[in-house]
Amino acid sequence: MQRPQNPPRGTIDLLSPESLSCRYIENLAQRIFESAGFQEVKTPIFEATEIFVRAAGEASDIVNKEMYTFEDRSGRSLTLRPEGTAGVVRAYLTNGLDRKTKPVKLWYSGEMFRYERSQVGRYRQFRQIGVEIFASGGVLIEFEAITLALKLFQELKIKDLVLEINSVGDFESRKIYQEVLRSFLKEHENKICPDCQKRSESNPIRALDCKIPEDQELYKQAPKIKDYLNNESLEHHKQLIKLLEDFNINYIWNESLVRGLDYYNNTVFEIKTNNKTLANQNTICAGGRYDSLVKDFGGDNTPAFGWALGLERVMQIAEINLKQNIDFFLINELGQENIIEIISLANKLRNLKFKICFDYDNKSPNKQFELAKKLNAEKIIIFKEGKLILKDLLNEKQFVFENSEELIKNII
Amino acid sequence: MQRPQNPPRGTIDLLSPESLSCRYIENLAQRIFESAGFQEVKTPIFEATEIFVRAAGEASDIVNKEMYTFEDRSGRSLTLRPEGTAGVVRAYLTNGLDRKTKPVKLWYSGEMFRYERSQVGRYRQFRQIGVEIFASGGVLIEFEAITLALKLFQELKIKDLVLEINSVGDFESRKIYQEVLRSFLKEHENKICPDCQKRSESNPIRALDCKIPEDQELYKQAPKIKDYLNNESLEHHKQLIKLLEDFNINYIWNESLVRGLDYYNNTVFEIKTNNKTLANQNTICAGGRYDSLVKDFGGDNTPAFGWALGLERVMQIAEINLKQNIDFFLINELGQENIIEIISLANKLRNLKFKICFDYDNKSPNKQFELAKKLNAEKIIIFKEGKLILKDLLNEKQFVFENSEELIKNII
Repeated sequence: MQRPQNPPRGTIDLLSPESLSCRYIENLAQRIFESAGFQEVKTPIFEATEIFVRAAGEASDIVNKEMYTFEDRSGRSLTLRPEGTAGVVRAYLTNGLDRKTKPVKLWYSGEMFRYERSQVGRYRQFRQIGVEIFASGGVLIEFEAITLALKLFQELKIKDLVLEINSVGDFESRKIYQEVLRSFLKEHENKICPDCQKRSESNPIRALDCKIPEDQELYKQAPKIKDYLNNESLEHHKQLIKLLEDFNINYIWNESLVRGLDYYNNTVFEIKTNNKTLANQNTICAGGRYDSLVKDFGGDNTPAFGWALGLERVMQIAEINLKQNIDFFLINELGQENIIEIISLANKLRNLKFKICFDYDNKSPNKQFELAKKLNAEKIIIFKEGKLILKDLLNEKQFVFENSEELIKNII
Repeated sequence: MQRPQNPPRGTIDLLSPESLSCRYIENLAQRIFESAGFQEVKTPIFEATEIFVRAAGEASDIVNKEMYTFEDRSGRSLTLRPEGTAGVVRAYLTNGLDRKTKPVKLWYSGEMFRYERSQVGRYRQFRQIGVEIFASGGVLIEFEAITLALKLFQELKIKDLVLEINSVGDFESRKIYQEVLRSFLKEHENKICPDCQKRSESNPIRALDCKIPEDQELYKQAPKIKDYLNNESLEHHKQLIKLLEDFNINYIWNESLVRGLDYYNNTVFEIKTNNKTLANQNTICAGGRYDSLVKDFGGDNTPAFGWALGLERVMQIAEINLKQNIDFFLINELGQENIIEIISLANKLRNLKFKICFDYDNKSPNKQFELAKKLNAEKIIIFKEGKLILKDLLNEKQFVFENSEELIKNII
């Protein structure tokens, strides 16, 4: 067989130290979410295709261009999850969580899959951490969810965070706004791109997300959702803003923020960073309220709120300093008969949480020493006839012990 | 939409407490593997199909009946990984780990996919934790890998562990044995199942894994690999057994243990448990030496050894007692104007690693108290005019504080 050149297009292998960072971030997220009473949910990597079609909308880019869809050996259409929310909503219903104590606060972490054009910072398999909260319709749960994300980023020492929020209105407000926006798009039909022409029919609000600069320039003059919020939606939005201000959390009210998905209502938000590493891929977290989705899935009317963060992007800018060095490398100068002693000491030190390596292949003492250095061992322990020498490779200090018990006593 | 009935056939959702146990086991594994100098690798969920065909063999059940294979939108054949080793070998080569300091010691944890007939304790999506070690051909690395698995199970308080080991011989020994076994199968051709008739041609050793009782009865009289091991293979096997005995590790030399995969040579092993929960699904860990696989993938001749454990089975029998209760539920008797105080105290206590919940929906004090009880809060903190009451719900004791600073001082 030819030596394989790469993992599948659009995917990467995570090795140390990135794999360590990934696990560190997940565990930090777990601690932060659990302290607020959240429980982890792990849904399958794939779901019935209709789950994602229902959530993202039949006309969405995700469904039409980006899903990994296939049939299993019984002809069922399955899709690798392109995002986390749909599967969690499905799990909320199929596990009867809608009959449990409310609100139900869930978090998840896992791989997502979108068949996108390969570009820097975009992967076809990527990881998201997210939260989904069911059965609480007010702004307190939104504030809690948003501040948990900010807390996570702060603990990862991510600087220059920018919270952008907006309201896309409740269903009543949005219906009125959609009509106004549709008229605007129709009026400028000859200036907008073919995609936006289609969107003016199917889902005018999505036109505002168009990536074409000329369209964006025009949309600066488009009617704004904020002018069409009814009293209830406006009050909801003001309450959230008041909470942010009460806690001195900086935010930008971004009136053109609508998010790509159909199902949002009222609050939507993004957290960005000005960190230059990410260039224009600088949105690290996004979410909002989706009060209609549980009902769309066949459940009761249930308010819901959630967000997801992109782990690959967060890993690029988080400041994580994890120790990778080996604490002790054990060097055997006494030949294979002494290997029992080596293994026994390694076991004891590992039980004391030290990171221990030794040679498995009967190398000469010199080769063992070379290996210790290559592995960045901080200290070595040399087994000589009748004694053990502990040598600190950083400061060259050394200590002699009669046996391993004496050595252990002196290092703990 | 109809309310969805279940996750896709053969898959499950993990919710608390199972999701907690899963993460606990992964983190314990990380600690144990890192203490022995292992690094985590995360390979993609899918690989080019040829990767798995090459590793498992074209004639294998995995390749012929059990793979989730599909084409991406560019017509590439991709397969959801049915096991972890092939992807890690691919990653070892594509990331140039074969040019790094050796041996290379890797571990992984992740979802695997096999389209198997649904049965109790068998899932189509399941999780495995495994280790793969490259470029060390002796028994020390085998001993290390096996004892790390045993240590993990011991820390999970899994009892009645049985280590079964065998040698399937080096390539020379196996070639001779295959011929002898082929003759035996031919001789009894009319008594064995059609699958085994085929196996007698393609891969006679695999017949020994046949699940049909009549065949198994017959195979008791089949020639044994141990009688065909050459001196080198026998010596290797004896060395490993000596190490196990030196460290008082109980083992059974199971002469009919051959494992389902083609690529093993010399040492193969399984760890079973007599725990009745698992019935006949009682193998929780299995692996062996695979010195030809890296070369089969286009790399240099590289000895390798690895194993994988089934996380679902391990979770069923591990004794894990994780605290799930909420430490404090904050009850607000002062109305929405007081919410800033509630959130501030929640934040402070969460920073002190306490698990804190409170009401988000402006419920009455009585309803808040009910919620606290439903969530199994151990203590409640009641905000009253000019004071805070801390009540221990387990022993009914209560304490009064003037403000939150005083309360915090008294509980840390």
